Amino acid sequence: MKKVKVGVAGYGVIGQRLADGVARQEDMELVGVADVAPTLAVRALKEKGMPYALYLASDDRKAEFDALGIPVAGSMEDMVRQCDVVLDSSPGGIGAKNKELYQRLGKKAIFQGGEKNSVADVFFHGYANYEKGLDKDFLKLTSCNTTGLIRSVDCLDRAFGIDRVAITIIRRVADPGDYHRGLTNALQIDKAPSHQAVDLMTIMPHVEATGILVHTPITHGHIITVVATGKQKITKQMALEAFSKHPRIRLVRIDQGFLGNASLFRYARDLGNPRGDMYEIALWEDSIVESGDSIMYAINIPQEAVTIPETMDGIRAVMHLQDTSAEATAKTNQYLGIGKWK
Amino acid sequence: MKKVKVGVAGYGVIGQRLADGVARQEDMELVGVADVAPTLAVRALKEKGMPYALYLASDDRKAEFDALGIPVAGSMEDMVRQCDVVLDSSPGGIGAKNKELYQRLGKKAIFQGGEKNSVADVFFHGYANYEKGLDKDFLKLTSCNTTGLIRSVDCLDRAFGIDRVAITIIRRVADPGDYHRGLTNALQIDKAPSHQAVDLMTIMPHVEATGILVHTPITHGHIITVVATGKQKITKQMALEAFSKHPRIRLVRIDQGFLGNASLFRYARDLGNPRGDMYEIALWEDSIVESGDSIMYAINIPQEAVTIPETMDGIRAVMHLQDTSAEATAKTNQYLGIGKWK
Amino acid sequence: MKKVKVGVAGYGVIGQRLADGVARQEDMELVGVADVAPTLAVRALKEKGMPYALYLASDDRKAEFDALGIPVAGSMEDMVRQCDVVLDSSPGGIGAKNKELYQRLGKKAIFQGGEKNSVADVFFHGYANYEKGLDKDFLKLTSCNTTGLIRSVDCLDRAFGIDRVAITIIRRVADPGDYHRGLTNALQIDKAPSHQAVDLMTIMPHVEATGILVHTPITHGHIITVVATGKQKITKQMALEAFSKHPRIRLVRIDQGFLGNASLFRYARDLGNPRGDMYEIALWEDSIVESGDSIMYAINIPQEAVTIPETMDGIRAVMHLQDTSAEATAKTNQYLGIGKWK
Amino acid sequence: MKKVKVGVAGYGVIGQRLADGVARQEDMELVGVADVAPTLAVRALKEKGMPYALYLASDDRKAEFDALGIPVAGSMEDMVRQCDVVLDSSPGGIGAKNKELYQRLGKKAIFQGGEKNSVADVFFHGYANYEKGLDKDFLKLTSCNTTGLIRSVDCLDRAFGIDRVAITIIRRVADPGDYHRGLTNALQIDKAPSHQAVDLMTIMPHVEATGILVHTPITHGHIITVVATGKQKITKQMALEAFSKHPRIRLVRIDQGFLGNASLFRYARDLGNPRGDMYEIALWEDSIVESGDSIMYAINIPQEAVTIPETMDGIRAVMHLQDTSAEATAKTNQYLGIGKWK
Repeated sequence: MKKVKVGVAGYGVIGQRLADGVARQEDMELVGVADVAPTLAVRALKEKGMPYALYLASDDRKAEFDALGIPVAGSMEDMVRQCDVVLDSSPGGIGAKNKELYQRLGKKAIFQGGEKNSVADVFFHGYANYEKGLDKDFLKLTSCNTTGLIRSVDCLDRAFGIDRVAITIIRRVADPGDYHRGLTNALQIDKAPSHQAVDLMTIMPHVEATGILVHTPITHGHIITVVATGKQKITKQMALEAFSKHPRIRLVRIDQGFLGNASLFRYARDLGNPRGDMYEIALWEDSIVESGDSIMYAINIPQEAVTIPETMDGIRAVMHLQDTSAEATAKTNQYLGIGKWK
Repeated sequence: MKKVKVGVAGYGVIGQRLADGVARQEDMELVGVADVAPTLAVRALKEKGMPYALYLASDDRKAEFDALGIPVAGSMEDMVRQCDVVLDSSPGGIGAKNKELYQRLGKKAIFQGGEKNSVADVFFHGYANYEKGLDKDFLKLTSCNTTGLIRSVDCLDRAFGIDRVAITIIRRVADPGDYHRGLTNALQIDKAPSHQAVDLMTIMPHVEATGILVHTPITHGHIITVVATGKQKITKQMALEAFSKHPRIRLVRIDQGFLGNASLFRYARDLGNPRGDMYEIALWEDSIVESGDSIMYAINIPQEAVTIPETMDGIRAVMHLQDTSAEATAKTNQYLGIGKWK
Repeated sequence: MKKVKVGVAGYGVIGQRLADGVARQEDMELVGVADVAPTLAVRALKEKGMPYALYLASDDRKAEFDALGIPVAGSMEDMVRQCDVVLDSSPGGIGAKNKELYQRLGKKAIFQGGEKNSVADVFFHGYANYEKGLDKDFLKLTSCNTTGLIRSVDCLDRAFGIDRVAITIIRRVADPGDYHRGLTNALQIDKAPSHQAVDLMTIMPHVEATGILVHTPITHGHIITVVATGKQKITKQMALEAFSKHPRIRLVRIDQGFLGNASLFRYARDLGNPRGDMYEIALWEDSIVESGDSIMYAINIPQEAVTIPETMDGIRAVMHLQDTSAEATAKTNQYLGIGKWK
Repeated sequence: MKKVKVGVAGYGVIGQRLADGVARQEDMELVGVADVAPTLAVRALKEKGMPYALYLASDDRKAEFDALGIPVAGSMEDMVRQCDVVLDSSPGGIGAKNKELYQRLGKKAIFQGGEKNSVADVFFHGYANYEKGLDKDFLKLTSCNTTGLIRSVDCLDRAFGIDRVAITIIRRVADPGDYHRGLTNALQIDKAPSHQAVDLMTIMPHVEATGILVHTPITHGHIITVVATGKQKITKQMALEAFSKHPRIRLVRIDQGFLGNASLFRYARDLGNPRGDMYEIALWEDSIVESGDSIMYAINIPQEAVTIPETMDGIRAVMHLQDTSAEATAKTNQYLGIGKWK
């Protein structure tokens, strides 16, 4: 079978991980990555010996690349020409501009959560609406929180039917290494409802969702609490059983040593995962409680890597590599090593 | 009228504020405060010129007090003898031991949230069950989170009837100045249900409550999100109207500049409140959203001072100064300057 | 004696404290404060019952003040006309613009550290160069770190002569309540030498100074370590003796409970200081160590309030209220209650 | 050549990295690792498929290992019997107890910084006193800060001769994932002089050292500022040249994007280093400033991994694999990939 050729535009926090993710898909080939400046990520690529070809999204700072001896394979347009699909993880807003290039060259693209929904034909999630993405030209992935949240809600929905969710997002304010934003000894609240609740309703229109988001001064891993109301009473046992079968959900417990988001980051580092990343969300067994007919639980969202698997699913959808969510996510999971430990 | 004589055992974070609170009640008299060591709080008392008489809860470190020239008015037993009621804000567990002294001397006492419920005749909240505290000997106050949470739930319950609440507590992990505990770049989750939900059910047994608590690395002000299900559909407008009438709830908005817990701490400092304390909880208008028949909202708990008014209410209950919650809380509010700004 | 009439332009973190400071000087009269928007500080002023008259620095948002029922006494120009001296604590850069107004109306002004040095005739410190400020029209105060640093270096310099200092500034990244900047789980280093070292040399040109500044994710209180090389060997005992006589330096010890900057903030709150502010820097006795002929020590800078006394000194200088630093600082200290506890 | 057989006692933050380090030394063989409980690190080992044999340091919790299906290769004594050298990274104090076992079985051991100096024959650093460790039975490694600090001071000392250093340590308070200790919105100062300065003098007795340590609420990477006084005037250029040749020192600049410790952690993750670890200290070129005859600079200490290379050097010393520091460190560097990028 011919491998799908994929390029990554924007080699930042997400872009680096998308590139690694594509490189692990045996039915895909990474054409290269594109960026505009010799960032730390690009310097690290150089120090590693250029495992990925680097293309320049703009010539403005070409001289700096030359001075640093960083080999450049060509322009971003050169990269896009070779691709079947471009994964666009440029800073918010740039993706919409890049779309003109993709359209001109007749290439498909998948945008990350920072772009407006209107940039794409379908607002996409690998589990919740894979089939809608089939053969489309442009997808936009759900953001990190929404991606992880939908995994858990979709999981319950398939098993028992879900009518309504009310969520509280306890959000990390910056990524590790971010110096352009931060919060110090403060919680910050956003106007409700949070966009994640609204986004969930776009993807799962039969569910009513609302929620409140609070930023906290930490760098890795959001925690979301979910109050989900089903079409029937969902007991803790029923929820546990459903969650335990989902390959992209890790059930963890406090008494195992998973005391919070930082335990999960440490665990992922100790697993030897590149960059200490984790593709799965974690769900605390000991957080699950019943409230009338509703079920309440808490999940952990590893913000840097959580959208990678669903983006791989997206490539499968636009290229119609698999017909169904079940087949596509199974392939993605296999190549990324997700669920092996179950 | 003869003033009620009140002493404070344990001059720490809460004890200092209880003493200040009693000193502002015109129908009460502060006998003094008791502690065991020349802590920073005691040193500050000395530097301020001993506005309150200081009693020694133990002679073990008497020599240190003498060396520092801190005047000591007598033993804690001397203080208790002069009191009608002792407010016990000793470290958790010590209160239970102190109770023997109070019983021996035939004195009433009100314990803070750190003690076990069994230490008291009634687990008390000034609004939710004032009448149960009337003429009792021993009360235990709800903890800071539970105190603030119940204010808001009781407010809705009186207006519309509440059946069920599901809460998410985003908790500060330490008080400003704490060095004996802390959390760094981490969220920590507790086994659910949180004790605050359980405690709410003890005080308001007709409400089913559950919830999840997550510790965050900040020092002032918890944020709690509440999903409350009423006997009838509660709209945002209905909730707003009820909350706006409660003297111990401040309605705030993000566009006013109240971006989170830190804005409230700054505002309280700018108000000139002693120590930058605030007795009221804040409730964000722009956090209120409807979820089916339920209403969701977020409140801010100023953990150092929030229990002071309800403790004053407790003194009123055990001394039967007023017959009803409405009368008692009105007196407390008047003397503490609560609700003036409404 | 006629009181000096003082106005404050910019009612933010520093402006509020300047206004309070002026109000405590018995030989000064606060004309009022000026700002442009109904910030939280202005809302707090309103809730307190307008203890200070409020002037509008711009009419752009007048309607908002009216809608909130905040009484406005006039324009900023109205305020300035009534003043002998204006304390300008506007955001960086605005002060330079305001200077035109002060010049046009023939008024003296004192700018805070955010402005460029060129805005003023003299870069000023109440202890180190008071006499240079006498009768001048425009002063610029040293920044918070430089103000506190110079207190300690000037103290040693007067006693023993100082040739050289090398400093490490461990800086708080934001004030309590700041949401527009922050740092999360990160230290940030600035290009050396730090401006504080350079500024020290401007004020004390006979001292060679250099240093490194590192931002840390905290909100109250910088810690600076100083390696000071004297004209003679300075022993720990000699340094201690000199420091202990300085009214604006508090000697503290770890075994007293002063474990770090947060202990000092708590102590200031427990003292009942408005907003929990402290005018003095703290100097840890147990940090003082000898290194060859040099002496090394650590100080704490309470960034929100530390420049207030030196600004009061500045008013004394430009109005020539006292002839010498010794007389002027003594007056300021008396009115602010500094050094009473010694 | 026969490979040196090495075991690791204590599979925690340091132990895991020691095991990985040994596994990369082509002239050594990792016998296995020992621990007492199914910690997250042990669970991760299991999930990775047991790349290292696991021995039990105690039978107390054997049942838990069995229940989790974690294969156990034997007792810690079984492991030690097979070793030439044991790397002891047990919690502080346990190493001293383990020493009895090592002595009984006639095995050499290298302890980490948490143990008392008296546990070992030599307090060791691979560059500063390699030769003292030759053929010894028991070494104790310098702590993370001291290890990195000595790299830089020894580097200058060899080039120019160093008489005196005064250091300021801006310390991370906890490792990523630590929940048993933390600091929130606070700096904490230790009694001076810091132990790192004292330790430096033990290793480099011809240098006078003192310093102040301040804990900060972050989790990865200390920053140390050093004021070093040489036998001759050391210019910035001279220092830069010396540092640039040291394989375990990375020269970095702010304008490259290395804004602080968090940039280095991100860079190490992006390099694909296991766990995002870095063996080198970083030294900011733009922090280097001259102060009289002294030179001042700032270094970054990656606390989790920085002692690994010097511990490998220690194995080389006790086994006398190489005669000199130069030869031994070259071998360690080669196998760990240190300095390749220079």
